[in-house]
Amino acid sequence: MATPDGSRVTSGLTAPSAEDYLLDWLRRQSLGQGGDFIGDDAALLPDGRAITVDHQIEGVHFPRGLDPAWVAPRLLAVSLSDLAAVGAVPSYAFLALAAPPESDRRRLLSALLRACRHYDVTLAGGDLATASALHLSLTLVGSRTPRGRWLRRDQARSGDRLWVGGEVGGSAAGRFLLAAGATAGRHTLRLPRGWRAPRDLGDAARLALRRHLSPQPQLELGQWLARRRRAAALDISDGLALDLARLCRASSVGAVIHPETVPRPTHLAALGQRLGHSMDDLMLHGGEDYVLLFTLPARLAPPARFRCRAIGEILAGPELLQERNGHRSPLPCHGWDHLRGTARTDEPHSLD
Amino acid sequence: MATPDGSRVTSGLTAPSAEDYLLDWLRRQSLGQGGDFIGDDAALLPDGRAITVDHQIEGVHFPRGLDPAWVAPRLLAVSLSDLAAVGAVPSYAFLALAAPPESDRRRLLSALLRACRHYDVTLAGGDLATASALHLSLTLVGSRTPRGRWLRRDQARSGDRLWVGGEVGGSAAGRFLLAAGATAGRHTLRLPRGWRAPRDLGDAARLALRRHLSPQPQLELGQWLARRRRAAALDISDGLALDLARLCRASSVGAVIHPETVPRPTHLAALGQRLGHSMDDLMLHGGEDYVLLFTLPARLAPPARFRCRAIGEILAGPELLQERNGHRSPLPCHGWDHLRGTARTDEPHSLD
Repeated sequence: MATPDGSRVTSGLTAPSAEDYLLDWLRRQSLGQGGDFIGDDAALLPDGRAITVDHQIEGVHFPRGLDPAWVAPRLLAVSLSDLAAVGAVPSYAFLALAAPPESDRRRLLSALLRACRHYDVTLAGGDLATASALHLSLTLVGSRTPRGRWLRRDQARSGDRLWVGGEVGGSAAGRFLLAAGATAGRHTLRLPRGWRAPRDLGDAARLALRRHLSPQPQLELGQWLARRRRAAALDISDGLALDLARLCRASSVGAVIHPETVPRPTHLAALGQRLGHSMDDLMLHGGEDYVLLFTLPARLAPPARFRCRAIGEILAGPELLQERNGHRSPLPCHGWDHLRGTARTDEPHSLD
Repeated sequence: MATPDGSRVTSGLTAPSAEDYLLDWLRRQSLGQGGDFIGDDAALLPDGRAITVDHQIEGVHFPRGLDPAWVAPRLLAVSLSDLAAVGAVPSYAFLALAAPPESDRRRLLSALLRACRHYDVTLAGGDLATASALHLSLTLVGSRTPRGRWLRRDQARSGDRLWVGGEVGGSAAGRFLLAAGATAGRHTLRLPRGWRAPRDLGDAARLALRRHLSPQPQLELGQWLARRRRAAALDISDGLALDLARLCRASSVGAVIHPETVPRPTHLAALGQRLGHSMDDLMLHGGEDYVLLFTLPARLAPPARFRCRAIGEILAGPELLQERNGHRSPLPCHGWDHLRGTARTDEPHSLD
């Protein structure tokens, strides 16, 4: 960890979210008793295993009434993305499932089993309960990739190049579409009622829904990075800017990004306009893209098959900057805050 | 597994609960893909690790408003009991926590960390979210005890003696007390308002509350059993009778118990009477005692320090019986059903 004493790096960097504060506090409380494991996308155990726990709640992480056949594979993909971010090879999954009595558990479990098979993951156990809303908690176990090391957040160094593993912004557009009334049935994605749009915009909207509901964890890319001598990585879950701030904070560095180089889905600007969100909102602060954000020494580039894109550089100082048309300015940093259940604002907020 | 083909053993034995059916179905779906791991209290992985996942939901597993300082250590104890039931030595814990914005997360996490320290468990990671009710999901990792094997449910053989690791029935009395208005503050347990009782009954009631809120996982006993040549075990979570049925089903045997030999807290009958429940209800069907129910070859007995009690014998046939005053009769078998969220009845119920 770059901050083994649990100290907060705030000067220059935008304030961490409430969740970051709570995790810092937890790390301080449990140092020597496990706090050393807290801070990467998955816990990296001394025995060579990586373990990650993620949960998703109806009405919080996904809309009420979403077909369970989307819910379970999505949770698996999100959790696999955590393993991708530490370069692990996934092996076992465990599900804690709380569901209303009327919900179709077999349909949910069938979909999960299919998705597990796809990723060569074994569903090895779980716990079942009845509750008023659907609530899933998934634990994934992975192991270090052969001839690899763990991929961590704290390995970025000044002069490194900053990369993303794929397009960002589409998932947030999909989330806003769902909030606007889009629905996802077993085989069809329906746009919000009364949604009139040129065909290409409609196609882009359906693609955004798919991005949101069916993210693709970048396991192979993570494993490739884990075999490099030095790389830092996390996955973009809470927005490019906020996750970049986390990476920089863990590595005690700063960064500058070039927003125009950030890869995005076609028609994202038009889609954003229809949904009342700027392209920056979607791309830089939207989140849930579950592509890797990583750094490599400047002389290295990932193989073309991964379709990564260089989007900036790591700086020695603690600033987070954006460069547009040759001008640098602070990168606004807000994203999803898991504790506030809302897009976070920048005012400092202490749990101590 | 005694039923590697996933077939249902129903003749003679009372019908399994909806959860048992769902687990059977899951095992059939995932055989060769992990189904082999499903069936014991924890998943027993080929690499020598045991993993268990348990979740607890406010209003389902514990009353609304219960002090978080009780909730988290209780969940840890319940999960540790799963590891005790397979004879594992616990090592790491992971928490997925969803809590209302106003809840005191630091208090909950502090209590969990204290409890982890007590059991030499490392809290190594987790996931945080905001939700309308408190919902915790805990993953525990353990390893095989040195010179031991995994303790499983399917090792009971005709002629074995049946044992329990401690008193049963108290936890259910505590649960009914909470439902009747008892409260648990930071340092005090309060009986329901207007509860008038002789002092010894009041003491018994407070003890029952403590039993319910603060179960003691029998890790050392589980590890001792895991070092025997043959033993079968599970922990009593859903009621002695229902859990005995599960053990017998996994081992393809029957059993007879002698209810008068089952250890119980003092004044349990009087307490039950006040709460409107028979002693059998509490002792045989109450559940959540989290003591081990196990079998050993008749020549073996656990060391006296474990305070175990022999309560019956394993039979070749599939019947579950009780013997009172020399007369044998079927043992009624109902207990908590996690899927129905209710005490289960005996009518068969298929999820297929």
